[in-house]
Amino acid sequence: SRNNFVRPKLTPIRVNGFVCKNPMEVNADNFFKAAALDKPRVTNKVGSNVTLINVMQIAGLNTLGISIARIDYAPLGQNPPHTHPRATEILTVLEGTLYVGFVTSNQPAPNRNKFLSKVLNKGDVFVFPAGLIHFQFNPNPHKPAIAIAALSSQNPGAITIANAVFGSDPQISDDVLAKAFQVEKNTIDWLQGHV
Amino acid sequence: SRNNFVRPKLTPIRVNGFVCKNPMEVNADNFFKAAALDKPRVTNKVGSNVTLINVMQIAGLNTLGISIARIDYAPLGQNPPHTHPRATEILTVLEGTLYVGFVTSNQPAPNRNKFLSKVLNKGDVFVFPAGLIHFQFNPNPHKPAIAIAALSSQNPGAITIANAVFGSDPQISDDVLAKAFQVEKNTIDWLQGHV
Amino acid sequence: SRNNFVRPKLTPIRVNGFVCKNPMEVNADNFFKAAALDKPRVTNKVGSNVTLINVMQIAGLNTLGISIARIDYAPLGQNPPHTHPRATEILTVLEGTLYVGFVTSNQPAPNRNKFLSKVLNKGDVFVFPAGLIHFQFNPNPHKPAIAIAALSSQNPGAITIANAVFGSDPQISDDVLAKAFQVEKNTIDWLQGHV
Amino acid sequence: SRNNFVRPKLTPIRVNGFVCKNPMEVNADNFFKAAALDKPRVTNKVGSNVTLINVMQIAGLNTLGISIARIDYAPLGQNPPHTHPRATEILTVLEGTLYVGFVTSNQPAPNRNKFLSKVLNKGDVFVFPAGLIHFQFNPNPHKPAIAIAALSSQNPGAITIANAVFGSDPQISDDVLAKAFQVEKNTIDWLQGHV
Amino acid sequence: SRNNFVRPKLTPIRVNGFVCKNPMEVNADNFFKAAALDKPRVTNKVGSNVTLINVMQIAGLNTLGISIARIDYAPLGQNPPHTHPRATEILTVLEGTLYVGFVTSNQPAPNRNKFLSKVLNKGDVFVFPAGLIHFQFNPNPHKPAIAIAALSSQNPGAITIANAVFGSDPQISDDVLAKAFQVEKNTIDWLQGHV
Amino acid sequence: SRNNFVRPKLTPIRVNGFVCKNPMEVNADNFFKAAALDKPRVTNKVGSNVTLINVMQIAGLNTLGISIARIDYAPLGQNPPHTHPRATEILTVLEGTLYVGFVTSNQPAPNRNKFLSKVLNKGDVFVFPAGLIHFQFNPNPHKPAIAIAALSSQNPGAITIANAVFGSDPQISDDVLAKAFQVEKNTIDWLQGHV
Repeated sequence: SRNNFVRPKLTPIRVNGFVCKNPMEVNADNFFKAAALDKPRVTNKVGSNVTLINVMQIAGLNTLGISIARIDYAPLGQNPPHTHPRATEILTVLEGTLYVGFVTSNQPAPNRNKFLSKVLNKGDVFVFPAGLIHFQFNPNPHKPAIAIAALSSQNPGAITIANAVFGSDPQISDDVLAKAFQVEKNTIDWLQGHV
Repeated sequence: SRNNFVRPKLTPIRVNGFVCKNPMEVNADNFFKAAALDKPRVTNKVGSNVTLINVMQIAGLNTLGISIARIDYAPLGQNPPHTHPRATEILTVLEGTLYVGFVTSNQPAPNRNKFLSKVLNKGDVFVFPAGLIHFQFNPNPHKPAIAIAALSSQNPGAITIANAVFGSDPQISDDVLAKAFQVEKNTIDWLQGHV
Repeated sequence: SRNNFVRPKLTPIRVNGFVCKNPMEVNADNFFKAAALDKPRVTNKVGSNVTLINVMQIAGLNTLGISIARIDYAPLGQNPPHTHPRATEILTVLEGTLYVGFVTSNQPAPNRNKFLSKVLNKGDVFVFPAGLIHFQFNPNPHKPAIAIAALSSQNPGAITIANAVFGSDPQISDDVLAKAFQVEKNTIDWLQGHV
Repeated sequence: SRNNFVRPKLTPIRVNGFVCKNPMEVNADNFFKAAALDKPRVTNKVGSNVTLINVMQIAGLNTLGISIARIDYAPLGQNPPHTHPRATEILTVLEGTLYVGFVTSNQPAPNRNKFLSKVLNKGDVFVFPAGLIHFQFNPNPHKPAIAIAALSSQNPGAITIANAVFGSDPQISDDVLAKAFQVEKNTIDWLQGHV
Repeated sequence: SRNNFVRPKLTPIRVNGFVCKNPMEVNADNFFKAAALDKPRVTNKVGSNVTLINVMQIAGLNTLGISIARIDYAPLGQNPPHTHPRATEILTVLEGTLYVGFVTSNQPAPNRNKFLSKVLNKGDVFVFPAGLIHFQFNPNPHKPAIAIAALSSQNPGAITIANAVFGSDPQISDDVLAKAFQVEKNTIDWLQGHV
Repeated sequence: SRNNFVRPKLTPIRVNGFVCKNPMEVNADNFFKAAALDKPRVTNKVGSNVTLINVMQIAGLNTLGISIARIDYAPLGQNPPHTHPRATEILTVLEGTLYVGFVTSNQPAPNRNKFLSKVLNKGDVFVFPAGLIHFQFNPNPHKPAIAIAALSSQNPGAITIANAVFGSDPQISDDVLAKAFQVEKNTIDWLQGHV
């Protein structure tokens, strides 16, 4: 609820688990993050880097239900298949080209797990509905790409599928995963060894 | 919002995309589903069968934010890793034993993608927080298991990871998935061929 | 809001009035309750026993909007007319037979206070919309019954009508209740003496 | 959600089951009800009359989560024990005196079903939390009373306990109610005959 | 969410930034404010006085989403153009006459910034949708007016346009305001000097 | 509520006043807007142009609670003081420099109508809490500026203060505004003539 933005008498106070400042002491810095999204950042092993500005960077976002991110993509890099458990994402391309998509849920048949994709150019906008598995891929072998994304939560969360399924700590039993993916356990072990 | 349960004058009317019956004509059948969860059902290729009673089976659930399911597990069967994009799940075991778990999200390091698991016996209760990847596995090679689960939405959705990632229609490019899972494309093709 | 599931830096922190654990220290036990719903429990004077697993039993349910209960019914026992001020309930019968029902609200006329009821057998599912007065009754004079119910809140609350109206502490004035129920004060006194 | 207040292109459209006017045609009358709350109204058999202005009287209230009422009380009249399944109520006395109260829910023991009451004079304000059983009683044998109440829903609903429990259509079985209220069936029949 | 009304074990606890009392210690005074709205109050320089009873006056309102106010209007007085950032308002006239109105948002053209107004007499009811600029004006040069208003938040907030735009601390630059209002800077300085 | 994303059987269906497509016919174009935010656009008389991509441009945003905008600022241009009645805004600068700020609400004294401002450079992020009056101004007399903003609603609304107060249709009476702004009526007339 946004009902509780201002609260005057008691300190220190916490709302949603974060400190809610005494309104007497609130200032512009509580709603500000300098140099947050301007610079390209080194990409990871799958060729991307997500810089998320959420309630942990800007305390004033608490209870307000939004956050913003810059995503850098190396040539042929990707923000790999993942979900946001608590947010829808809307994305626009600042530089380069992105091949993006999401997969619908299991129901209703015969429409289950439909893959909806699009090639995005600079200025295009795309929406990834809350909780659905999605990715962005830079198909250009020579140029990086940049996107700005916004999420409908001050703490949207992110779950990278490969990491969560094959790289968790501790690992999920290969007995379970072998049957889930309908392959031999050594294929699962292989996958777990590579994430 | 639950504010709109009763509406008297106009017909037909739809709320949340479902018909909202004229209150004059509402009867107990609109809140009822017979023989919904009593019988064991044939399990699928991974050894489970989820019988979900949601707003599509009971129209009166519309706007009310809850649904219920019976899950049957064959010996060594599983309800494979999946998420509910719009609901938390709470589960109790009716018969047999289940090995269950979920994986936390990517942040905060060093706690990323922590796998939390538990062996559940009859009468135990476990919670799978909204949007997180989770599964249930029946470790008993001889006996089936049965659980009742409830979800915090009248239309929770379900996304089976293996199907959504490796079995979507159309398939996600193996270029994308090979990099995401850090394996060769032919491993991805292999996985896509088995889901 | 489910936006605040993870919070990394400050301890101890409370959300919705409950401790929100440092994510570094979260473990499976925070989402688990052993042997919660497996055993028949001694029924009360009206012949029932509700075992509710809510946020007070499983701290990890905090902010997640769901809870689960087992209800035992003695032969001819009942879960007497009551409401949940903060939740809808969905129920399924595990054993025996239940006669269940709820009463709609005062409006719209001429449909006011309509009583909707159903006899439920094993596996049937029924919904009690949020805030409406409802009950379950085991009509079998020889056999107990068991149900599993789920509620759309981690703290649904329950208000047993007889207790709240005729057995509150202190008692509501019999002047008030006599007029409300259109009877003599000694009838109210009688009722207050029996709850 | 209040996100959907304005919608420009399609007509007729319904939101929450009510017609959502084409914004081109919206006018002040859609947010207005003339002479709604100014006049004393004839009180019913328990000595009160609630004039509620909700979304059925003012269509523009749709999705906005509030309504208002005037309540007239005859000398010794009451607005009998009732609940609002979808709203909290805040009340102020315009004329006369009111004895008001509500009963808390069953938990936590030993604090169950605590009756909290107050005598209100002109200008006093009292809150009845959502879903709890409450009443107002005019203790003055000679003078009427008037209150204004507001409710946190555009369609709060109201359930008068006596009517819903003992006067529903059809009646709840006296077998059920006799046990619930721990009295003989003929006492229940008596109560059912008087509501 | 109203899910968290009762919490039994830990003290002191805060919800939404306010103390959430140990339920063992809750009493009627936590839901009560004496002599809050009965007396005429001295009006300010624009001829009004808003007496708002919100969560800061009645702690028990916390999380419950409603508040109430009495507004006094001097002859020719007004509650000047303002918004409530977190609430819809519903208002009824107790005494006198009010000329009221609100302005719709910028879109959709050609319907932008439509001014909807009405003259209200005693007992009329009017709704000001959440976040829209609205005012009430007493057109009678001889008689005061009184209204009761309710708001759909326990902490609705209020932003008086003249004060926030021309009277903030520190002042907004007259460069900015001159262009915004399409006038010379000395007109802005004039306005800033008069609020 | 996001509970209703998928709905299979009835067509055409509307949710929140917008058509909710038959899931069988959903495709990527329903979540896409081409060339939406890439090009500089001609600025208006106060030197800005807001290109908002909301549910009216991307139907798939319905119920998902987010939208995105590009804002162009001419040298010395501004996005003048305005509010979003249904959304918080988070903004980052893509090019140039912006002087931004918002004004807090009337309470609590002595902290009323505090003006919080900041100069933003490329990559800085700033938050404008829901419903508060805010603006962005490009202080550079020679260079344009560009920002990307995201809003926590699929239909956030926007109310430009100057237009809504001094340029509504019909105009608000200058009697009302003269007193509200504590100036002569001819100053109001002057302001009304310039917006």
